[in-house]
Amino acid sequence: MTRDFTIFAGTANRRLASAIARELNVTLGSSTVERFPDGEISIQLAEPVRGREIFVVQPTSPPVNDHLIELLAFADACRRASAARITAVVPYFGYARADKRHGRREPITASMIADLMQTVGIDHLITLDLHAPQIEGFFRIPVDSLTAVPTLARALRDRLPDDAVVVSPDAGRVPAATMYAHRLRTSVVVLHKQRASGTETRITHVVGEVRDRACVIVDDMISTGGTMAESIEALLAAGARPEFTLVATHGLFLPGARAKLDHASVRAVVVTDSVEIESDDWPRLEVVSVAPLIAEAIRHTLIDGALEIV
Amino acid sequence: MTRDFTIFAGTANRRLASAIARELNVTLGSSTVERFPDGEISIQLAEPVRGREIFVVQPTSPPVNDHLIELLAFADACRRASAARITAVVPYFGYARADKRHGRREPITASMIADLMQTVGIDHLITLDLHAPQIEGFFRIPVDSLTAVPTLARALRDRLPDDAVVVSPDAGRVPAATMYAHRLRTSVVVLHKQRASGTETRITHVVGEVRDRACVIVDDMISTGGTMAESIEALLAAGARPEFTLVATHGLFLPGARAKLDHASVRAVVVTDSVEIESDDWPRLEVVSVAPLIAEAIRHTLIDGALEIV
Amino acid sequence: MTRDFTIFAGTANRRLASAIARELNVTLGSSTVERFPDGEISIQLAEPVRGREIFVVQPTSPPVNDHLIELLAFADACRRASAARITAVVPYFGYARADKRHGRREPITASMIADLMQTVGIDHLITLDLHAPQIEGFFRIPVDSLTAVPTLARALRDRLPDDAVVVSPDAGRVPAATMYAHRLRTSVVVLHKQRASGTETRITHVVGEVRDRACVIVDDMISTGGTMAESIEALLAAGARPEFTLVATHGLFLPGARAKLDHASVRAVVVTDSVEIESDDWPRLEVVSVAPLIAEAIRHTLIDGALEIV
Amino acid sequence: MTRDFTIFAGTANRRLASAIARELNVTLGSSTVERFPDGEISIQLAEPVRGREIFVVQPTSPPVNDHLIELLAFADACRRASAARITAVVPYFGYARADKRHGRREPITASMIADLMQTVGIDHLITLDLHAPQIEGFFRIPVDSLTAVPTLARALRDRLPDDAVVVSPDAGRVPAATMYAHRLRTSVVVLHKQRASGTETRITHVVGEVRDRACVIVDDMISTGGTMAESIEALLAAGARPEFTLVATHGLFLPGARAKLDHASVRAVVVTDSVEIESDDWPRLEVVSVAPLIAEAIRHTLIDGALEIV
Amino acid sequence: MTRDFTIFAGTANRRLASAIARELNVTLGSSTVERFPDGEISIQLAEPVRGREIFVVQPTSPPVNDHLIELLAFADACRRASAARITAVVPYFGYARADKRHGRREPITASMIADLMQTVGIDHLITLDLHAPQIEGFFRIPVDSLTAVPTLARALRDRLPDDAVVVSPDAGRVPAATMYAHRLRTSVVVLHKQRASGTETRITHVVGEVRDRACVIVDDMISTGGTMAESIEALLAAGARPEFTLVATHGLFLPGARAKLDHASVRAVVVTDSVEIESDDWPRLEVVSVAPLIAEAIRHTLIDGALEIV
Amino acid sequence: MTRDFTIFAGTANRRLASAIARELNVTLGSSTVERFPDGEISIQLAEPVRGREIFVVQPTSPPVNDHLIELLAFADACRRASAARITAVVPYFGYARADKRHGRREPITASMIADLMQTVGIDHLITLDLHAPQIEGFFRIPVDSLTAVPTLARALRDRLPDDAVVVSPDAGRVPAATMYAHRLRTSVVVLHKQRASGTETRITHVVGEVRDRACVIVDDMISTGGTMAESIEALLAAGARPEFTLVATHGLFLPGARAKLDHASVRAVVVTDSVEIESDDWPRLEVVSVAPLIAEAIRHTLIDGALEIV
Repeated sequence: MTRDFTIFAGTANRRLASAIARELNVTLGSSTVERFPDGEISIQLAEPVRGREIFVVQPTSPPVNDHLIELLAFADACRRASAARITAVVPYFGYARADKRHGRREPITASMIADLMQTVGIDHLITLDLHAPQIEGFFRIPVDSLTAVPTLARALRDRLPDDAVVVSPDAGRVPAATMYAHRLRTSVVVLHKQRASGTETRITHVVGEVRDRACVIVDDMISTGGTMAESIEALLAAGARPEFTLVATHGLFLPGARAKLDHASVRAVVVTDSVEIESDDWPRLEVVSVAPLIAEAIRHTLIDGALEIV
Repeated sequence: MTRDFTIFAGTANRRLASAIARELNVTLGSSTVERFPDGEISIQLAEPVRGREIFVVQPTSPPVNDHLIELLAFADACRRASAARITAVVPYFGYARADKRHGRREPITASMIADLMQTVGIDHLITLDLHAPQIEGFFRIPVDSLTAVPTLARALRDRLPDDAVVVSPDAGRVPAATMYAHRLRTSVVVLHKQRASGTETRITHVVGEVRDRACVIVDDMISTGGTMAESIEALLAAGARPEFTLVATHGLFLPGARAKLDHASVRAVVVTDSVEIESDDWPRLEVVSVAPLIAEAIRHTLIDGALEIV
Repeated sequence: MTRDFTIFAGTANRRLASAIARELNVTLGSSTVERFPDGEISIQLAEPVRGREIFVVQPTSPPVNDHLIELLAFADACRRASAARITAVVPYFGYARADKRHGRREPITASMIADLMQTVGIDHLITLDLHAPQIEGFFRIPVDSLTAVPTLARALRDRLPDDAVVVSPDAGRVPAATMYAHRLRTSVVVLHKQRASGTETRITHVVGEVRDRACVIVDDMISTGGTMAESIEALLAAGARPEFTLVATHGLFLPGARAKLDHASVRAVVVTDSVEIESDDWPRLEVVSVAPLIAEAIRHTLIDGALEIV
Repeated sequence: MTRDFTIFAGTANRRLASAIARELNVTLGSSTVERFPDGEISIQLAEPVRGREIFVVQPTSPPVNDHLIELLAFADACRRASAARITAVVPYFGYARADKRHGRREPITASMIADLMQTVGIDHLITLDLHAPQIEGFFRIPVDSLTAVPTLARALRDRLPDDAVVVSPDAGRVPAATMYAHRLRTSVVVLHKQRASGTETRITHVVGEVRDRACVIVDDMISTGGTMAESIEALLAAGARPEFTLVATHGLFLPGARAKLDHASVRAVVVTDSVEIESDDWPRLEVVSVAPLIAEAIRHTLIDGALEIV
Repeated sequence: MTRDFTIFAGTANRRLASAIARELNVTLGSSTVERFPDGEISIQLAEPVRGREIFVVQPTSPPVNDHLIELLAFADACRRASAARITAVVPYFGYARADKRHGRREPITASMIADLMQTVGIDHLITLDLHAPQIEGFFRIPVDSLTAVPTLARALRDRLPDDAVVVSPDAGRVPAATMYAHRLRTSVVVLHKQRASGTETRITHVVGEVRDRACVIVDDMISTGGTMAESIEALLAAGARPEFTLVATHGLFLPGARAKLDHASVRAVVVTDSVEIESDDWPRLEVVSVAPLIAEAIRHTLIDGALEIV
Repeated sequence: MTRDFTIFAGTANRRLASAIARELNVTLGSSTVERFPDGEISIQLAEPVRGREIFVVQPTSPPVNDHLIELLAFADACRRASAARITAVVPYFGYARADKRHGRREPITASMIADLMQTVGIDHLITLDLHAPQIEGFFRIPVDSLTAVPTLARALRDRLPDDAVVVSPDAGRVPAATMYAHRLRTSVVVLHKQRASGTETRITHVVGEVRDRACVIVDDMISTGGTMAESIEALLAAGARPEFTLVATHGLFLPGARAKLDHASVRAVVVTDSVEIESDDWPRLEVVSVAPLIAEAIRHTLIDGALEIV
């Protein structure tokens, strides 16, 4: 390591932050985050940051607004205490789907958040499987957009049946699905949605052959579980074998999601620890850590001009 | 009115926003604020704002982070939809006490929020009884700092006993207490706190004569009720008559606060509607509306060069 | 009209600028654009802009860099001459496909151009059928993203055979294709591309029924004509009737494009005048003007709070 | 020291700058500050600053406007000559009392100066006993707010009578007074002012016991000497022993101030050298140097992540 | 007049401000500028500026730093009090000669001042005969660079001898001299300076015919009077008739300047009132007012899109 | 070298970039610049820049707009890929003559370009013989303005006849001409232009003695060759010996320029390689490299606080 650095954890995912620190053979920076009775967040750094490279690990997962303000205030504290450079490590980027206006009078909240992060002095962003690659362009600061696909594909490799195909639940996920298929040496099937009426969409076509085959449905996140559940239904209707593996980078699992996916045909649900998650009580769920991946990205940031891939 | 304007209400205090609109003989702008299952806020303006003067009424009361992000996203939506000018009407300014660093590695959250507001394109701020007047200096945009003291004093005038004195619970509130005393034609008594140990403070002196007199304790906000309760205790110990009126601009009344102030000696608790508040179930509580005051400030903003006091 | 305004034409599409001015019953602002022998552009406004609302019509079509610098310098001249507000009318937004980094060390040129436009003082952008809706989020200023789909659909309506289907040449164009299909009261067929090797892609599936039907292939732009030519081939292979209508908002027609599309099965090529285009010498080509559409958007900008749809 | 640095002195307090340099075992950077016959200031750096950490020592003491512009121009010269980082060392921050608007149409000059300093490229501010802690929040750059209280308390310790109390001349100075009292192992007495009429205030209460005791009156600055003189008068009236020690961080001593304080009961006037000051001709005056304190702060800035207290 | 406006006078040239106001049939805005005993400037606007177009008349003549800070603080007060637009009217722009670095480590003070003015929210600058036209480029805001040449030429016209020539004291003034000559229907003579040694320059050539002719020496300012005195000497040596008229836009007349120019051969010294000046006691001096010229520029600013020449 | 650095070449002058790299004993950074069929530029950096000091060599010579956008996009790519610092090496600064407005409604394109460069994150500019020294003030970032005069003078020294004089073709070039004359130990002759009518100027005086002497005409650039050709004519008319050496830093040689200067009396045309130039086919032309000069400037940037002259 060529520069002194400190990794701080916000409250959103201390477990991941600790794992990253372990990978880098350091201890987490000492800090206190309190909430006053009125809900205001108070932060205190318990060690100097002056002249140091600071990393703040804080996915903006639910409760997204609290986690976001905490991240911004953390950066404000670091900047005022003379940190040399502040990198926000935001493995799950909340509001990422609010990336356009749909021709209506709306905010573009993802772009606004990019502005807020830059306003408080965040110098660099490390994030993971952004919902849309254009979000990088909302930032002027450097963005390292990592992908968990290789990590997740590695976890899947030895246990999929030979005939498994990768399924993209809609057209937007095809590039990621292609990456999975390439690494799993299989092909991609795409589900086609059409707007039924108003805001409702319905899967109308299954593009590619699924008859009697096992399916690996891949998405960037599992939130309410709705997309996964509908995809299973459409694939079964198209003759797929009732043997599904559900894979996503971000496992939000909002209330009700687990129930929706607790289906006899679901062999496994595989996600990363980008968001803090309890897995003990659900045998179907497997959590793969992205701590090594993020630690590697931090290492690149610290060693100037080192060999790197991104 | 010389310019076209629209008043929108965020979700924090729709009742106050409606009252302000009524004062100005307009209807509230039509908009939708939704929360997705993952807690993300979505806003849609249901009428054009192009070229109009926009006022968004949204105190950043608890849950402060949700109300703040909602306000910022509201402004983002207005700016992108070509509003001519955006005024945030924030009668209660959350995080106002986070206005300095206490010589420690902390954020100055109030200053950071000023930066965030300006980043999203808020052009003007109307606020009420800011905790510290220096907060204006955190902004580059114009700030109209209104005060509810005349409004509250008017509400008190005819029902106080003749011998009542105004009590400032600490040195910081003396300027406001002096304004009250001047309008109520009485004098000011100041309570002196001293740091007992660590973060704890204790009232050690009562400066001024309170023996056998009724007391009007004034503060900028009632939050946990702790300051008011301690003040009552100190005043009773100093011989005050058990006949207290508690007055504050902002009535947050966090859980437990009402119980703490539900004291036989408390004749009335008088606050404004800067924060949304339920008063029906607590006879001691009286809520005075600041809608006329804020409506007047909006009117000044719209009529260029009109006669004004601020 | 409630405010004084002037429309200037850059050199990229004077014909469109004139048509817009005619729609608004004004004459174009008088200005001179010269190129020195060394290629430097010199601009002089020949009439006052002080306190006026200025519209500069300049698609950043090829030669894109010259047209872009000319637009920026035009805005610089207007700002320094005290224009009240500067709207860039950029019906074709060059570099729009450079909206992400593909995981490589590249610029995000579309985002950079958004920054450049804002730096020189452009206050508002009017554009047409942006390649990706996220590009709006690269801007902090208001963006009016118009769409030519209704205009083009109207031009097609009465002359398509009853059995015609709308074809989206890839997944990204499905939303636009759906708009066309809705207005033409028919259905959407989607072509699926897969990466063959390296940068090459190949159409591998035709999703939807095309056998013996006429096809309307829709895209945002026709540039080299390659996408259209491949789509025709794939549709013919899938049994479509050799009766194609090719529709796009932006008709760049780079050298070689016309030859590629000069096919017996092509009934008509329909584009707008977002880019300056010669149609006299190619009977297949039909150009529909977006001047009324843009004039309407300008009218909305000028009449504060008028009824509007966007 | 881990980085190359240079300390330059403006003209406001060369003596302090030299003392700081001596503490750090370096010589002052070589520079020329000239004033043209028309009063314009001209600065020339006589040695390279490229890539170096630069400290410019310049309190903005009277003549405040000249010293301020000189500081800004110094920073401009350093930035243009490629300094790596510019720290303004401003032990006395002029206009600090202009930190709020008093409800009138006024500038907030302290906030404006913060903006000016940041505009010219000052990256960091080191200052001393700011009039109000909120001034830090006017800055986005890191601010090291040092305090001279420990330094001054150390100078006082061995020569005060055992019964001495610390006196805060108004409520605003209580926090500093408490720091003094803690270090001198005594208690705090507070003087209470009340607005008599218009802009005039009068001391009306002495909170705490002073009868027959020696008093150490502490303030942030001695300017006209008026506050100190009034305090002495009020304390004598309250029965204090005529044995005063007057202590302040900043000794401006405007014309007339010394005469006002040249009182038989004044044992000593103790200030720091934050402002350039002549002490030879006034035996009552003692000047304690803050050079070691500031040198220590500079050392912290240079040694990344070193042990520190602030 | 189409918008409400107010003209305020700083302390630098109240007489000119009043004359401008008279030309526009308005009274000066009411404001107070005070200086505290420590030299700090305090400003209070005594009438509302909300929503109004504000003009602050303040040349940055000596004492330049005081006048500059006063101007900046004036703008800060106007911005915070919600002025719609702030125009600085700075007929004499101090530090204009500090417009480049001469290859040394220096500030570019004129550029820095442009940044400061923009930082405090000045939206527009009206200035007069800038030392170098490039200074406009230091600003992003619109700059109206007026010239007093027509005004001064008109004042000279009827009293010059028929054979008078216009003399430019160095190459930099040739463009202005050409304007004078054109209006006075005569020709230009140029004095050539060469660097003698170090910072000293010497006039070495008189380009053009001056033998037995009267000379009108024109410059942008008369400061110490040195340039004028040397030019007279050189022209006499070249055979000019001892009958000089000295003309400049800005009459600073630093101490000693009048003595230097109080020469029998000097018929008249003609300057404008851009800088406050006492003319009663020096019969040679004639002051021509630029109030009508500046009033005209203000009028253009207020009437949108009016016919104008600049 | 104390920091890791990489030099990239844009397409404008790869030959110079290579020569600079050779001087510094490094190889050029690997990158690809492509142009799509529609003229859009695409850039890819083929090696990491993270944490490195980056130099991009790109004169903005014709085609100026293409070269400029390429430079800006190069910087965008470097910034997004986490370069530590980006220096643009722009030996020829296009649009430099557009540095003022001439009292008309025009852009100040040179100032605008300064803004664009800073917007994309260029941190430092190295340039050569800027047309006007004030252009530095358009930038807030550090500018190293190098001069090729010593380099060119060295190349001339041993081959000029003893009686040669240096000729400045107009007043603006006198400072540079004086530098040449000083180094060549001879004197300066100045040509005087006067506006004949409209935009046309004519040389009317030759200031200094040229009869029977050889002349070295010096200018900052040779563009169309017009200025040089007129100067030769005027000098011959004034009796100069038909033995001219034409010297300029920037040899643009627009079409027609060489023909204009291919004159029997022209002994040599000497320029630098600031702009890519073909010299093989014109024996009169001699190109002197500025690679050592620029390499030296880069070296200074890298070695903090090294001895330097600028």
